[in-house]
This record gives sequence, structure tokens and C-alpha cells, in this order.
Amino acid sequence: MYFLAHNVAKKHNIGTMARCCTAFGVKSLVLIGSRQFNTFGSHGADGHVHFEHFDSLEEAREKLKGERGCTQILGVEIVDDARAIESHPFTGNTAFIMGNEGHGMTEAQKAICDGFVYIPQYGPGTASLNVSVAASIVMHHFASWAGYEERSREGEKFIVAERPQRTRKRGEVGESPEQVRARRAAARALDKEQETRGEDAIADADI
Amino acid sequence: MYFLAHNVAKKHNIGTMARCCTAFGVKSLVLIGSRQFNTFGSHGADGHVHFEHFDSLEEAREKLKGERGCTQILGVEIVDDARAIESHPFTGNTAFIMGNEGHGMTEAQKAICDGFVYIPQYGPGTASLNVSVAASIVMHHFASWAGYEERSREGEKFIVAERPQRTRKRGEVGESPEQVRARRAAARALDKEQETRGEDAIADADI
Repeated sequence: MYFLAHNVAKKHNIGTMARCCTAFGVKSLVLIGSRQFNTFGSHGADGHVHFEHFDSLEEAREKLKGERGCTQILGVEIVDDARAIESHPFTGNTAFIMGNEGHGMTEAQKAICDGFVYIPQYGPGTASLNVSVAASIVMHHFASWAGYEERSREGEKFIVAERPQRTRKRGEVGESPEQVRARRAAARALDKEQETRGEDAIADADI
Repeated sequence: MYFLAHNVAKKHNIGTMARCCTAFGVKSLVLIGSRQFNTFGSHGADGHVHFEHFDSLEEAREKLKGERGCTQILGVEIVDDARAIESHPFTGNTAFIMGNEGHGMTEAQKAICDGFVYIPQYGPGTASLNVSVAASIVMHHFASWAGYEERSREGEKFIVAERPQRTRKRGEVGESPEQVRARRAAARALDKEQETRGEDAIADADI
């Protein structure tokens, strides 16, 4: 299971979402757009979560449906043909994407989805759920459907692993080796192009 | 479904829990101990939630199992014989009680329970869930099991009712008519007793 966070507005929602991601076995929390995030509310869980970064929604869809083998990208949104989450409309590895607090999903976000799920509500007092509450309910159902192995417990707590050594700056998604290679190749290509264009062209360039 | 909050520590958890309560059709959010609460995080949903107050855990159990017709009081805690929440171990009207953040349920809280449910976790990074996340997953499953009627929607939001006129001070649970009657009866009985004991006894009393 993958979880996409695109323009999540409130500063502590990435932190609390990271805590939920590790509780429910999310493979990576995918940030789109900004590489920076705030880990407030994660209770240290962000050290255990694998973060990934993609520049655009389109790139995220291509990678998730391609090499990551997701059969579906499901939007969490109350649209007409959305299926109730407890009906488990899953077909295999899945990436979930949710809207921003208060505004729901944008058309661009909906455009990368294969379908939608929603969480039924029963009372009169609130139009929507808090983002991390909604995310957790979705993750909980997927993990249960997928039959993930339950974490062992000790007394009344699930066992927390040693925090892995930090290999990136806290609160920022670093580049993957693949992204580093792509960036370097692009820089080399640019150097070559500039050599070809000669000194005059460089002098004219907007640098 | 009833939800008991006893010594919930973080100030905004009652507010966010109130929002979840109204989303999932909780009949009343029962405060035990303090009548005061903080509504931060409720997004106004606290105006729609029915709050009740009991002085003690024992009083709560008696009323919930008695006149409120609950077949079970279920603790949400990872104890040895706890059942996974998605197995829906429900038998009728149910009151749920959760522990305090970080410390789990106390022995006194466990003592009023007929059984326990827990939320399975699958990852290495966190020992427990945020209280409002855990509460929401529990409420969501109960509402789904009980077949509560889904709230109607308008576009991509569930319809929020007009906020009912406030009949109590915000952030405080008032007394129910029954509690007012009981308090007045006790006061009258005390007056009578004091009259009987006479002026001398009153002068000696520790007032």
C-alpha cells in the first residue's frame, strides 16, 4: 500500500499521517510537490516511514502503476460512484490519495485515480473527517483486506523497532539513487550542449 | 453506541472526539469525573453531540447497563483476550471506553468492562495510535455493524444540520433533569435532617 500526500495543508498532518503509515504497514508515504514536511505529531514514527518524492501527480501515477505494480490508484473522496471503504473494493497493490483539508480533491488529483472510496458517516454534525482520521480508516481496511502480518506485542503495546539510522535530513525527502542519476545525466547533457553552442551562446544566455 | 471519556489528557482530544462522535452516530459522549472539557478541534461539531456526565466509573456502568440498555461495555485496549475490532464482537447497544494517551487503561477502567477490542497494527514504528484515530476506527466499525442509516450528502460533503440552540455553557456538561431532581431531593433531605437535629447540632457541624 502506498499513500500520496499532495498539498496537505496543516503542518502536523504529515507527522500524524507518518505515525498511521507505520502502524498500518504503508510501504511509502509519497510526497508530491514540496520535498519539505513537518514531522510534528509523528511521535518519532517518521524515522520508520519510507518517504518518496515525485515532482508531479503524473509522474507519481506512472511510477506507481508501472514499476511499483499498483493495480489501482484510489481517491478518498465522496463522489457519486465512490464505494464504501468497508466493502473493500481492492484488486491488489493500491495507492491512495486524499484531498486537502476542507477543499476535497482537485480535478488534477481526481484525474490520476482509477476509482474512489469513501467513509460513510451517520450523524448530522460534521461535513467531513479530519484527514489523519480518514487516512487511518482507509489504511486499516486495506491492511486487513491484504492480510498483512500483525506486529508482535509486548504487554499492552505493539513492539516498536529500534529507530533506523537517519540517512536523510529530518523533514525533507532526499533524492533516490535513480533521481540522483537522472539529475546528473541531465547536468552532463546540459554541459555538452553548452560546449557545442560555444562561448558566445553562453554569454547571451540568461544566467 | 456510547463513548466514555475518563481522564483524557490532551486538551484537544475531546473536541476531535466530538467531531468523530457526530460523524459516526454516537448517542452520547460520556464524561466521567470533570464536567469541563475543551472543544478545540471539534470544528463546531460539539454543538451537535449529546454530552453526559457521571461522577464515577461505577455510576457510568450502572446507568449504561441499566436504563441505557447496553449489552456490553467494551474497553479499547491491547490485552491478551482482546478481539480484533474488524471481527465485530458486538451483541447490541455498546459503550466503549479507552485509556488515557500513553498509559493505556487503568485497572479501575478495566474493572467496568465486559470485554475488550483492539485495533491490529502491522508496522514497526509506533506502539499505539492517537486516541481520536483509534476512537474513530472503533466507531466506524460499530456504526457499520449496527447498520446505522447513512447521512445524506450534497456534492462531496455530508450535509451538516443547523447547529441546535445551545442549552448549556460551552465546554461544560450541565446536569440532566434527572440529576437536577436528585440534587434538589438530596438538598431537601439535608434541610429536613438539619431541622430535626436542631440549631445546636448545626452550630457544631463542620461548616
